[in-house]
Amino acid sequence: MRLTFSLHSALASPLLVLAAPLLVLAVAPAAADDGLWLPDAFPSARVEKAYGFAPSQAWLDHVGLASVRLAGGCSGSFVSARGLVQTNHHCARDCIAQLSTATEDLVESGFFAKALEDERKCPDVEIDQLVAISDVTARIAGATAGRDGNAVAEAEQAAEAAITRECEGGDAAIRCDVVALYSGAIVKLYRYRRYLDVRLVFSPELAIATFGGDLDNYEFPRYVLDVTYLRVYADGRPLDTSANFLRYAARDVQPGELTFTAGNPGQTSRLDTVAQLAFERDVTLPRNLFYYSELRGLLTAFAASGAEQARISEPLLLDVEDSVKDGKGRFYALADPPIIAAHGVAERALRAKVAADPRLAARYGEAWDNIQAMLDRFRPVRDRYVFTEGGQGFRSYLFRYAKALVRHADEAGKLDGQRLREFTDANFAAQREALASSVPVEPELEKLTFAFSLARLREALGADDPFVRKVLGRNEPAAVAAELIDKTKLGDAALRRSLIDADAATIAASDDPMIMFARKIDPDLRAERRAYEDGVVDPLARNSALIAKAMFAIEGASSYPDATFTLRFSYGTVKGYRENGRDIAPITTIGGAFARATGNEPFKLPDSWLAARGALDPEQPFNFVTTNDIIEGNSGSPVVNREAELVGLIFDGNYASLGGTFGFDPETNRAIAVAVGALRMALARIYHADRLVEELGR
Amino acid sequence: MRLTFSLHSALASPLLVLAAPLLVLAVAPAAADDGLWLPDAFPSARVEKAYGFAPSQAWLDHVGLASVRLAGGCSGSFVSARGLVQTNHHCARDCIAQLSTATEDLVESGFFAKALEDERKCPDVEIDQLVAISDVTARIAGATAGRDGNAVAEAEQAAEAAITRECEGGDAAIRCDVVALYSGAIVKLYRYRRYLDVRLVFSPELAIATFGGDLDNYEFPRYVLDVTYLRVYADGRPLDTSANFLRYAARDVQPGELTFTAGNPGQTSRLDTVAQLAFERDVTLPRNLFYYSELRGLLTAFAASGAEQARISEPLLLDVEDSVKDGKGRFYALADPPIIAAHGVAERALRAKVAADPRLAARYGEAWDNIQAMLDRFRPVRDRYVFTEGGQGFRSYLFRYAKALVRHADEAGKLDGQRLREFTDANFAAQREALASSVPVEPELEKLTFAFSLARLREALGADDPFVRKVLGRNEPAAVAAELIDKTKLGDAALRRSLIDADAATIAASDDPMIMFARKIDPDLRAERRAYEDGVVDPLARNSALIAKAMFAIEGASSYPDATFTLRFSYGTVKGYRENGRDIAPITTIGGAFARATGNEPFKLPDSWLAARGALDPEQPFNFVTTNDIIEGNSGSPVVNREAELVGLIFDGNYASLGGTFGFDPETNRAIAVAVGALRMALARIYHADRLVEELGR
Repeated sequence: MRLTFSLHSALASPLLVLAAPLLVLAVAPAAADDGLWLPDAFPSARVEKAYGFAPSQAWLDHVGLASVRLAGGCSGSFVSARGLVQTNHHCARDCIAQLSTATEDLVESGFFAKALEDERKCPDVEIDQLVAISDVTARIAGATAGRDGNAVAEAEQAAEAAITRECEGGDAAIRCDVVALYSGAIVKLYRYRRYLDVRLVFSPELAIATFGGDLDNYEFPRYVLDVTYLRVYADGRPLDTSANFLRYAARDVQPGELTFTAGNPGQTSRLDTVAQLAFERDVTLPRNLFYYSELRGLLTAFAASGAEQARISEPLLLDVEDSVKDGKGRFYALADPPIIAAHGVAERALRAKVAADPRLAARYGEAWDNIQAMLDRFRPVRDRYVFTEGGQGFRSYLFRYAKALVRHADEAGKLDGQRLREFTDANFAAQREALASSVPVEPELEKLTFAFSLARLREALGADDPFVRKVLGRNEPAAVAAELIDKTKLGDAALRRSLIDADAATIAASDDPMIMFARKIDPDLRAERRAYEDGVVDPLARNSALIAKAMFAIEGASSYPDATFTLRFSYGTVKGYRENGRDIAPITTIGGAFARATGNEPFKLPDSWLAARGALDPEQPFNFVTTNDIIEGNSGSPVVNREAELVGLIFDGNYASLGGTFGFDPETNRAIAVAVGALRMALARIYHADRLVEELGR
Repeated sequence: MRLTFSLHSALASPLLVLAAPLLVLAVAPAAADDGLWLPDAFPSARVEKAYGFAPSQAWLDHVGLASVRLAGGCSGSFVSARGLVQTNHHCARDCIAQLSTATEDLVESGFFAKALEDERKCPDVEIDQLVAISDVTARIAGATAGRDGNAVAEAEQAAEAAITRECEGGDAAIRCDVVALYSGAIVKLYRYRRYLDVRLVFSPELAIATFGGDLDNYEFPRYVLDVTYLRVYADGRPLDTSANFLRYAARDVQPGELTFTAGNPGQTSRLDTVAQLAFERDVTLPRNLFYYSELRGLLTAFAASGAEQARISEPLLLDVEDSVKDGKGRFYALADPPIIAAHGVAERALRAKVAADPRLAARYGEAWDNIQAMLDRFRPVRDRYVFTEGGQGFRSYLFRYAKALVRHADEAGKLDGQRLREFTDANFAAQREALASSVPVEPELEKLTFAFSLARLREALGADDPFVRKVLGRNEPAAVAAELIDKTKLGDAALRRSLIDADAATIAASDDPMIMFARKIDPDLRAERRAYEDGVVDPLARNSALIAKAMFAIEGASSYPDATFTLRFSYGTVKGYRENGRDIAPITTIGGAFARATGNEPFKLPDSWLAARGALDPEQPFNFVTTNDIIEGNSGSPVVNREAELVGLIFDGNYASLGGTFGFDPETNRAIAVAVGALRMALARIYHADRLVEELGR
């Protein structure tokens, strides 16, 4: 699994990605342990009523400060006084791969720094620790007051940039994010300590970090050690985290035990209108799945054609398989009538209340129909957007580099507030980092995916479409792709770095064929983006905000906002579930891993495990499930007990948890974690990581 | 396109395939030209009212006798007095491939028999001419009266076999089919003259028969010469068809002109309940599309890996691409709210009328809820059926051969009425023919698709499922597939032929690993089939029949039954349509083909066309669209004018026609045909097929 969160994940719906979050309505029974609770609005009374224990604000503050966000889309926690961070293997995999060499594949073989000085710096990892939240709703409202149309968005963007700049004060060790909660009805400023010196301490072999592979992804029972330890350094020394870290609990969880998580869930859509959910079910999810299923097949056959092909396509294939499985889970959740039906009941009730009050009806009454009408307009042009600016027609890293260079040169000359959002001063660092990536580009794979995507672009828009003619001329997709990939020089990271700061004239004069190609079609892509933002994103945000305000007016802000990749708490219990008529027990054991191993991928245990088998307790709990409400972005989240001791490490949700995007079903939705006892036992008896065992204590 | 009809087409829903057809309700406005009309119940009065012309019964009989069915899933017509049959290239492609040799690829290069004696016999083509229809409803009802449960199906099967035997009288030149119309409320016996000596006369190059390839499949405007001429022989001489053949019209169609088709539409579902349609939309179609999209990607990458790989995978890739495009068209039709909504309006109206009459309510009132309940039970086990007995888990010709041999040996020892339907005496010829197929088996491709399907079986049922363990043991799918494909001898057609008549003991003693594998898992596959037939097929047939009878009781049999791959007539006019805001003109020209050609696949005109360009009239109509209601199985259907002269050759429907499975939309649904003038011009000026031009006359 990857509970990582990406704003541009393969299957993310453009609507979901860009839609403002909505207020959550209790689709699940009110008594359920659902909720992605804000750190400053945790329902302690509700927890006390159900479980006889109420976390104090001090308890929450402590766990919150001990929790971190990995800017790449994960969560984690400090687990020692000396800056040691525990997260998932899949959250640190890029770093582990970057630290590998031709002779030393750390992803496959694992890594352990025997001494502090052996810890290796991750090139691209950023770890953020939330230190303060403040309300900036009034300031944003003031900046946009009296404006219309595009001027609103520009003023908003400018105000956000100013607030962020002010908050960061030019200090690279501070990161500030403006976060729209409840569809922007409340806007808050999140201030983080930002750590960029992060080093790899320990990671196990890929075979045990992903035991069961794509087959077991999002499933339970599981037998996975999906862990990596990193260390945060400040001024070249381990960060002092003695004030706030989570101690490993002495004993593992028991069935029924109360558990909490802290983490950064990325995105939910729990109060999308019925029209939006039907659009997801009928258009977005299935069409994306058709595309990604094809891509999965394409990569599967490519990988089967040779060892080198298997090696270079593996990371992409894993991503695509994950996206397909995740997308299917969400599609099946929506295709199952109860979820949309439950949303319908809630929506009709709210609309009836709004309709019954003339003042509310005048302000908010049309929002639902407006969204339906917007979707009806969008439906016939959806593929045009998705295959052009949406990127499904241009699946090539080299093309993306060229497009980013062309756009940066254009945008650099504009005022910050008028630029495309990803090229504002605040966001440019991420672009620069992506452009400078040292991940090698594989021409053979590039040709395959680029040819595929160009062919699908032509299929989606038709061979006679003017834009398709502009892209392909009278040539076949495979020929166009091969020509561009063969001739561009953008595979050279140093060249890309040198072009990042090139002025518009330099880019305009470039004779690199991929840059010329990107330059030729970028006006069309920009036009599609503008049409999409004006026709879909803006109306959706506007009407979603009206619905959120209608809910505030009727029910108050008594629930949690949809996920925003910011710190949230959840509570729940260790609990099994039923699936296809079978009872699934909540805890697996180390012995179960050996029983399940076949010696063949994806059920092949590493040699280190086979060698240590005699030293392991087969009854030691390995993985467990809880009713905690988590979602992508929660990868690496700590699971703690009432004493705020660490009892587990979230690394996945079960298949039903994929429906958590749209609503929480307490009967079936489960978070999956590694038990701390298994972590401790593996470190001590399999990996002999004594230094680390000692640091973790007990 | 392939408007061919296959009972086991890649994407066919198991529900659609096995569901009894239902009465059609007017989902489209009553004035629309929809309808797959029975030859003995054509609505001449309705046509006269709309167009001032009423085909007489003599007119209908003449056109009906001049029309033929290709048993492989197509339609055609006699077009000369000497047994000449006109059909589509894609309907005769198997024969053309079988007649090719290592040095002479007739599919690519085309074929023309310069003299009668050069015409080459197609190994497997059967052409049927409908000569009589009689009603056997009472006889079937008598045979099943007073029986229960499985005894009903057995008695039905036995009665059908007896009726068929009696009708055929042991004469191989007669074919009789028992056809259930209106969900079996009416059962008729169709008697055909069966012709097995069918020879290839002319076919053009694949490049012009499929100009535009998969991209243009189901699209318009088009520029395609999808034609093949065959000739029926009797006693070694051309069949005398002077009494009933269709003459080529002297002039091509005009916009607005009235047109008729005669042909054999395969299957429609125009009065499925709303619950069935929602199941298609939410489960069957998307899940099949996920599977076939993956398979498409797999084959695309395989074909891209080398020229030989491209060659051996091409036929399968074309089929899969067609299935994907067809499936998407049907999925999009259902995902568009109006179609299901219209069905809902009609269904609620009918249910209200049934509910209002206590006698009808008692007999038929529960049928709709019964179907919903059946689908709710089926949903969680649907994948289990589809990936086991449904075949998606076992995509290998060699496995299918082994399974057929194992089953035949088992079934041969049973009474005819108690066998699996495909092994009854009546159906065994088709099995034998399939087993003896001389199409070469490609081991490399077999391994790829078998490994893929076994992997998806494991994904669908889970690695720990007992059946999956039985299939794979503790091995990986690719290893299991490679081992079986490498070691089986069933690729040898002579060996297969020798085993067809083997007794059960011989098959049981076989040490061929694929036969052993099939023998091992066949009991599980049979159990899944039995569960599916008892749990889904039978209840669906029973309740669908109740709904059909409710409609008869209220409305009478005033409309046409769903398609049954038997002779049907349609009427319509030559008419363009609007698509994505664009007006599409109804007729293309020969000149348009040259304008569209790029010199690259799939827009590459054959050399013969390029050479003849100067001799062609660029304004000659090439392809045209009409509002005739057609569906798969209509491939090769003649289009005739009021004078019963041939004006066109159906070869495709437009994209909207794919929704015709569920209902006919007169605004957008179009049949696509080749104009006879283009056929005549191509034969004369490009192919210099003077003998044929003369035979066609005028």
